[in-house]
Amino acid sequence: MNLQLRPATAADTGTILRFIRALAEYERLSGEVVATEAQLRETLFGERPQAEVVLAFDGEEPVGFALYFHNYSTFLARRGLYLEDLFVLPEHRGRGIGKALLKELARIAVARGCGRLEWAVLDWNEPARRFYESLGARPLQEWVVHRLSGTALEKLAAG
Amino acid sequence: MNLQLRPATAADTGTILRFIRALAEYERLSGEVVATEAQLRETLFGERPQAEVVLAFDGEEPVGFALYFHNYSTFLARRGLYLEDLFVLPEHRGRGIGKALLKELARIAVARGCGRLEWAVLDWNEPARRFYESLGARPLQEWVVHRLSGTALEKLAAG
Repeated sequence: MNLQLRPATAADTGTILRFIRALAEYERLSGEVVATEAQLRETLFGERPQAEVVLAFDGEEPVGFALYFHNYSTFLARRGLYLEDLFVLPEHRGRGIGKALLKELARIAVARGCGRLEWAVLDWNEPARRFYESLGARPLQEWVVHRLSGTALEKLAAG
Repeated sequence: MNLQLRPATAADTGTILRFIRALAEYERLSGEVVATEAQLRETLFGERPQAEVVLAFDGEEPVGFALYFHNYSTFLARRGLYLEDLFVLPEHRGRGIGKALLKELARIAVARGCGRLEWAVLDWNEPARRFYESLGARPLQEWVVHRLSGTALEKLAAG
């Protein structure tokens, strides 16, 4: 394997969308993907990029990606790094690509003075959870994320 | 009650830090607060603000705050709004101030084209959870946030 990591550019938008769809399929959430290539290009590589992407290649072939943005901790008064998506093509798993992507994110977090690297995992994804805990990550079991979207969000905004 | 909401400015930094400490005490997490006023001012009101704050006042008296930043959904290819802290002084609770702050966040989210408003709640905080669900928020029970920080983060970055 000739593993290379590099930041994604607008030319990689199609690859990123393909990976987003494959990740959603693995997470059994395909019905939730409404992203289009145009919208992805605009929000990631337009005037105001809203997240960043690292791509992993085996030679010329893209085999995985990590998408991240900055969050903020009031307790630390510092920004952190939040990993929204981490994905490696099924046929390339077990070769250290996911760990290489996570290491790259940790390196970026430390270089930017972030106090934390955080991400969410589906509770039934035991292989992923074991992997993350082996790296020293701590599951924040006591926190439950809540989401307001669609008509409930519009109703509260207008009410 | 003469409730007013407005965006915070650098002059409000001391008030914000006081509220952050009071929130940490309520969450039984006071030991985790290392934020200083200088660092808070720099990260919220410096050259590159990393989060935004809305303050609630009863007349001249600050009585609560909401601190938020943008996250990003790959499934939507849109940014969302993430509410990091929501706090109302105990003696001012039960008067609709928390709901007014959440409504303001929902309004900002919709105005900025965000698909979602999200936040995390401690699982034992039943009054908060009932309140959020009454507004139409959905708990994402199946997701577990993981955190890598301190020496574990540095070790992965350097390894």
